[in-house]
Amino acid sequence: MVERKDFLQEPVKHIKINGKITVDQLIQQYGNAGSFGAGRLSVACDIYERMLRDDDCTVFLALAGAVVPAGMRSLIADLIRERLVDVVVSTGANMVHDALEAVGGHHYKGHWQVDDYLLYKYHIYRIYDVFVPEEDFIKLDYTLVKIYDAMAAENEGKSLSSKDFAWELGKRLDNPNSILRAAYETQTPIFLPAVRDSEFGYAYLLHASRKNAEKTLKVDAFKDVLEITEICKRSPRIGMIVIGGGVPRNTVQSAALASEKGMDYAVIITMDRPETGGLSGSTLAETVSWGKVKSKADKIMVIGDAMIIFPIIVASVIERLGENFKRIPYIQRENLLAAIGGS
Amino acid sequence: MVERKDFLQEPVKHIKINGKITVDQLIQQYGNAGSFGAGRLSVACDIYERMLRDDDCTVFLALAGAVVPAGMRSLIADLIRERLVDVVVSTGANMVHDALEAVGGHHYKGHWQVDDYLLYKYHIYRIYDVFVPEEDFIKLDYTLVKIYDAMAAENEGKSLSSKDFAWELGKRLDNPNSILRAAYETQTPIFLPAVRDSEFGYAYLLHASRKNAEKTLKVDAFKDVLEITEICKRSPRIGMIVIGGGVPRNTVQSAALASEKGMDYAVIITMDRPETGGLSGSTLAETVSWGKVKSKADKIMVIGDAMIIFPIIVASVIERLGENFKRIPYIQRENLLAAIGGS
Amino acid sequence: MVERKDFLQEPVKHIKINGKITVDQLIQQYGNAGSFGAGRLSVACDIYERMLRDDDCTVFLALAGAVVPAGMRSLIADLIRERLVDVVVSTGANMVHDALEAVGGHHYKGHWQVDDYLLYKYHIYRIYDVFVPEEDFIKLDYTLVKIYDAMAAENEGKSLSSKDFAWELGKRLDNPNSILRAAYETQTPIFLPAVRDSEFGYAYLLHASRKNAEKTLKVDAFKDVLEITEICKRSPRIGMIVIGGGVPRNTVQSAALASEKGMDYAVIITMDRPETGGLSGSTLAETVSWGKVKSKADKIMVIGDAMIIFPIIVASVIERLGENFKRIPYIQRENLLAAIGGS
Amino acid sequence: MVERKDFLQEPVKHIKINGKITVDQLIQQYGNAGSFGAGRLSVACDIYERMLRDDDCTVFLALAGAVVPAGMRSLIADLIRERLVDVVVSTGANMVHDALEAVGGHHYKGHWQVDDYLLYKYHIYRIYDVFVPEEDFIKLDYTLVKIYDAMAAENEGKSLSSKDFAWELGKRLDNPNSILRAAYETQTPIFLPAVRDSEFGYAYLLHASRKNAEKTLKVDAFKDVLEITEICKRSPRIGMIVIGGGVPRNTVQSAALASEKGMDYAVIITMDRPETGGLSGSTLAETVSWGKVKSKADKIMVIGDAMIIFPIIVASVIERLGENFKRIPYIQRENLLAAIGGS
Repeated sequence: MVERKDFLQEPVKHIKINGKITVDQLIQQYGNAGSFGAGRLSVACDIYERMLRDDDCTVFLALAGAVVPAGMRSLIADLIRERLVDVVVSTGANMVHDALEAVGGHHYKGHWQVDDYLLYKYHIYRIYDVFVPEEDFIKLDYTLVKIYDAMAAENEGKSLSSKDFAWELGKRLDNPNSILRAAYETQTPIFLPAVRDSEFGYAYLLHASRKNAEKTLKVDAFKDVLEITEICKRSPRIGMIVIGGGVPRNTVQSAALASEKGMDYAVIITMDRPETGGLSGSTLAETVSWGKVKSKADKIMVIGDAMIIFPIIVASVIERLGENFKRIPYIQRENLLAAIGGS
Repeated sequence: MVERKDFLQEPVKHIKINGKITVDQLIQQYGNAGSFGAGRLSVACDIYERMLRDDDCTVFLALAGAVVPAGMRSLIADLIRERLVDVVVSTGANMVHDALEAVGGHHYKGHWQVDDYLLYKYHIYRIYDVFVPEEDFIKLDYTLVKIYDAMAAENEGKSLSSKDFAWELGKRLDNPNSILRAAYETQTPIFLPAVRDSEFGYAYLLHASRKNAEKTLKVDAFKDVLEITEICKRSPRIGMIVIGGGVPRNTVQSAALASEKGMDYAVIITMDRPETGGLSGSTLAETVSWGKVKSKADKIMVIGDAMIIFPIIVASVIERLGENFKRIPYIQRENLLAAIGGS
Repeated sequence: MVERKDFLQEPVKHIKINGKITVDQLIQQYGNAGSFGAGRLSVACDIYERMLRDDDCTVFLALAGAVVPAGMRSLIADLIRERLVDVVVSTGANMVHDALEAVGGHHYKGHWQVDDYLLYKYHIYRIYDVFVPEEDFIKLDYTLVKIYDAMAAENEGKSLSSKDFAWELGKRLDNPNSILRAAYETQTPIFLPAVRDSEFGYAYLLHASRKNAEKTLKVDAFKDVLEITEICKRSPRIGMIVIGGGVPRNTVQSAALASEKGMDYAVIITMDRPETGGLSGSTLAETVSWGKVKSKADKIMVIGDAMIIFPIIVASVIERLGENFKRIPYIQRENLLAAIGGS
Repeated sequence: MVERKDFLQEPVKHIKINGKITVDQLIQQYGNAGSFGAGRLSVACDIYERMLRDDDCTVFLALAGAVVPAGMRSLIADLIRERLVDVVVSTGANMVHDALEAVGGHHYKGHWQVDDYLLYKYHIYRIYDVFVPEEDFIKLDYTLVKIYDAMAAENEGKSLSSKDFAWELGKRLDNPNSILRAAYETQTPIFLPAVRDSEFGYAYLLHASRKNAEKTLKVDAFKDVLEITEICKRSPRIGMIVIGGGVPRNTVQSAALASEKGMDYAVIITMDRPETGGLSGSTLAETVSWGKVKSKADKIMVIGDAMIIFPIIVASVIERLGENFKRIPYIQRENLLAAIGGS
C-alpha cells in the first residue's frame, strides 16, 4: 500500500542559470526540477547513458522524419563511427538524402512560407524549410541507377535484404560524413524496411525500365525480418532510441517481440499523441501489453521536435561519458553479424 | 491586385440545428460557416464528391493508423465493393487486422487506462483502447503460414509485388467483410509498400524457418513501384484520400510524381503538424513544390481523428450521390489492370 | 480481481454506411465501434444527453477559442434559449464577437494563407480563416463606450460582477441571435472571468479616458467568484461542457471545487495535450485528484476541433431528445438566481 | 522578382558534437543547420538577445501554463532581478504557486500515471507530474486572507489594479526566490489579467465571507488595461516572450494594439496549432494583420514544451551577454512607472 508520504518525497528544485553552462549542466537542472518535458528529457539522457554503459545491450536507432536533410547527417554518422549506435532502422528517405549529399548534392536553408508554385517552376523541392534543387536529385538518380546496375550484376540470382542493399550503397558512396558509408565501414546493420518508399524506388523504376526482368536488382521485402530478429535474439539486452515513430519504430518493436525478448531500454522522441490510435503516438505503456518493451524497462517518451531534442540528448550523454569512453558493441564483439551476412 | 472588398465577400453564416438532421445537412451548415475545421471538413466532402463524379479520375485511398482494428473494416470493404475507391495503399498492419477478423478473430472494446502488465500476463495486446487476444494472432499466424506455403509453391521462381501478395491473401480469405477479399474480388489494386513491417513479417519468419531458402515466398521490395506508377501514368486524372500519412501517403504522392503527373484532387486527414518536418504533417502546399499535387488541384487537409472524420465524409458524400449513383472506375473500364497483372 | 475474460467482452462492431443517415445514426455506429475518437465522441453525446435528462443538474458551458466568429453564435444562443445550457463561462473575446454582430458588424469567410501585411494595410483583422473589417470593431467600440457610459451612470458607486456586466450588455443589444441577448432575456448567468482581456478592455480605455476616475464603470475582478460558487453550491448536481479550455474551463472547475462538490458530468473538447502541464490539456483523471470532478463522474475528453465536434454533439443530442423535450433548469426552477442578483 | 539562385544560397550545415559543449555552442550549431525546430530555436535566442541589447525596448514576459510549480520559479525571479525581463503578464495560478512556496509550501516530483482517486483521498493535488499537498494550499489561503484583510484596510475606498494587487502581495511575501517579491522589490510591473481565476479567487471567497461588502478588497477588472497600455505607449520599442499563450499572450498583444504601436520583437513558445482558430496557436503572421506585431518585427514561434525550450533560450542568451552585461530597462530609466502608480 502506497502511503501518503510516499507521494511527497522529493520537492521540485527550481532551475537556476547564473552564467555559461554546459548542455549536461542544464540537463542536470532539468532532472532536479523533474517535471513536464524537462523531467522527461533528463530521464531520456539517463537512459541513453545507461544503455551505452551496459556492455551487453544492443542499441537500435529508429529514424523517421526528415531529420537527415535538416541537419542530423553528420551527427548520426558520427554516432555510428563512435559505436554509440549499434543498429539503424531508417525510412528510405533519410538515406536518400544522405546519399544525395554523398554524390555532391546539397540541402539549403529555406523557409516554410514561400510560393510553392514558384519553387515548382524553379525545380526546387521543399521539405518544410529545407530546399533541394531537382538537379541534385537527378544526379543522385543517375548514380543510383549505375549502382543498381552494378549491384544487380554482382548479385545475379540473389535477393538482397534491405540491409544488404544499404551496405552495398555505402560501399559505393565514398564520403566520410555519409551515414550509409559509416554503416558500411563499421559493419553497422542499417535496415530500410520500407526502402521502396523513397527516391530509391524511383531509381529502381529507371533501372528496371532498361533491363529485362531477370537482370534487375532483387531486394526481398521480407528478408530483413530474419536478420533483425536474429540480432535481437542473440543480444543479451536490447534498447532503442526512436526519432519520430512510423515504420522504423514499429520494425524495432516487432523484432523485440518476434525474438520473444522485449526491450530493456527505450527512448522515444515524438510529437504524435496516443488518442488517435496510431503507432507513432502510442505510449510505452501500451508496448508492454505486447511484450515489445519490458514492464521493468527503463523507458521514456519525450514530446518534442527531434531536431531540438535529440542533439541535446547526444550532447549531454557525450559530456557524461567523457573523452576516454570506449565502447565495443556486443554485436561486433561477439560477431553476431556473421549470422546475418556481415563480415 | 486584390482589392479590399475582395476579402469581404461572404459573411460567415452561423450554424443552426433545430431538430433531427442528416449528416450532409450538417456538413452543408459547416460549409456555410466556412471556418476552422468545419470549413475544411465541408471542403473535403466537396472534393471527394468531385473525384467520384469525375469519370476519368482514379481515386487512391492511403491508409495508415490503426483504423481497421478500431472499426473501419466494413466501411472500407464497402467503399471498394461500391467502387468508391479505386486503389488502396495501406500499412501492413491494417491488412493484418483485416485478415485477423477474416480467420475468425476479433477486436474488443477496451480502455486506454489499464494495467498493461496485467494485459501482458493475460496475453492481450492493446491498441490504444482496442484489445486483441494473442490466440487470435496465433490463429492468424497459423493460417498465414499455410497461405505463404501455398503461395510459395504456386509462384515458385517468381517474385510477387506487394499487390500480388495482397490479392493472393484475398483469394484465400473467404470473408465478405474483408478488405483484402473485397479488393481481390473486385480486382482493386491494394499496395502494401511496407508489408514486412507487420505480423505479415512475423508469419514470414515462421514460414521461412521451415523451408530452405529457395522454397520460401518471394515478395519483391520494389516491384510495386512499377505497378502503382503505371496506374498513375495511364489515368487521365488522379486523386487521393489520405488517412493518417506515413508510408501510404508518401507512396501515393511519389507515384504521382514518378508518373510526371501530379494529383488533381487531394484530401488528407491527419493530426500531425508541419513544423517538425515529417512527411505526415507536411502541408499540401509543400507537395506542390515537388509536383506531387498540382498547384490548381482541389485539395484540403482536415485536422482531426480519422475515426471521427472519415466516416462523416463518407456519409455526407453517399447522401449526395444518392441511391442510383453508379461508378465504373477508369482503371477497370479501360482495363488498366492487365498492364499490371490483374485480370 | 479482473479476470481475463472481463477484457474481452464486447467486440468492436464495424461502421456501416449504406445510404442517407442522420447525425445520431452515425453516432450510434461510433458507439458500436467504440474506439479512438469515435468511441469518445459517442460517449460525449451520451453524457450530454444524461446531463440534460437529469432534472437536478446545472449544465455549464465553458467557451474558449474563437468559435463565435467562426460560426457558433446562433448555435449557442439557441442552446441558451432552449434551456439546453444553464450557465455560460466565456472568454471576453467570444462575447466581443457576439456583440460585434449585434451592432451590425460581420465576420467574413477568408483564408489562412494570405498576405497579412496587405490585410493590415486594408484594416482587416484575421482570425485564422475569418476576416473582420476594422470598421466593424470601430462601430462596436462606439456602441460599447455609450453603453459603458450608461452602465456607469446607472450603477454609480456600485461594482458589477462580470455576469452583471454581461447582462447589462445583453439588455442593450437588441438582437435575437445574440448570445448576450439570449442570456439576458432568459436570465442565464454568463460569466466573463477575464473580461478585460478583449475589445471590452479597449472600449474601457476609450470610456475611461473621457471620464474622471469616480465616474467610470466599475467591474469587480473577484465578485463573480461568489456568484458562480453559489450556483454550484445550490445545485444538486453539476456538469460541464468545455470548448477549448483556458480560463473558462478553469473557472468552472474551480467553482466546483470551491463549492466542495465536484462535478457529476464532464465533456471536454480540446486539441491540447497533457504532457506540457497546462490546464487546457490536463486530463479529467487529473481533475479527480483535486476534487473538481468526481471520481465516479460521467466524463470524457474528445480530442478534436470544436467547430467540428460540438455541433455534432448538439445535433446528436437534439435528435435523441426529440421535439417535445422540455427542460426547466434547476437554477431557474428553484430561482437560484435571486441569490446572485438575477430576477 | 525572386530568382532561382536566391532560394539556394546557404547550405544546411550538419550538427557535430565532439565532446563537452556549452548550451550556446549547441544553439550556434542549430543556427548553422537552420531547419525545423533547431532553426526556430536558434532564431528565438537571437531575438531575445537583440531585445536585451536594444536599450529602448521594453521586454514583456507572458506566462501561461503551470511552469512555476514545475520548476521555473527561481529562473523567472532571477530574470526580473537581473533586469532581463521588464514587465510580466501571468495567469493567476502561476503566482499562486509562487506564493505557495513563499509561505513555506512545496511542490513535489510526482508522476502522471497514478491513482487520482487515491491522491484525492490523501488530499494531494496533481498538476501533470507535480504533486501539491492540500495543507500547503490551506496555509496559503490562511496567509492570503490575512493579506487581503490588510490590503483592504489600507486601501479602503480604493480599487486596485491587478498589478497593484500583485505588488501588494510581493510586499508581504518576504522570500527572495519569489517572483512576486522580486517584482515588488524591483518595481517590475506584473499584471494578472485573470486574477480571479486561481486560488486568489478562492481566498477572496474566504475573505469576503467574513466582511461586509464595503470592507472587502476591491480589485478592478479593467484598471490594468490603462497601465499596460501606457507602458506600451511610452516605450520606444516593445518586445514579448510568450510562454504558452492564453490570456497573458492576448493581453500583451492587445496592449501593443491599443497603444497603436505594434511589437518590434516577438518570441512565442507553444504546443498549440493554428488550425482550430484559438489565440494560443495563432501564428505571428496573423498578429500582423491586426497591427499587434509589426510586419518587419523580429519574430519566431518555437513549437515545444516551454519547460524544455525556455531555459535553453535563457542559458544561451546569458552566455552570449557575458558576466559584465548590465541593463537598465527603459521603463525604469525613464521612470515610466510613476505614470502607473510605481515609485
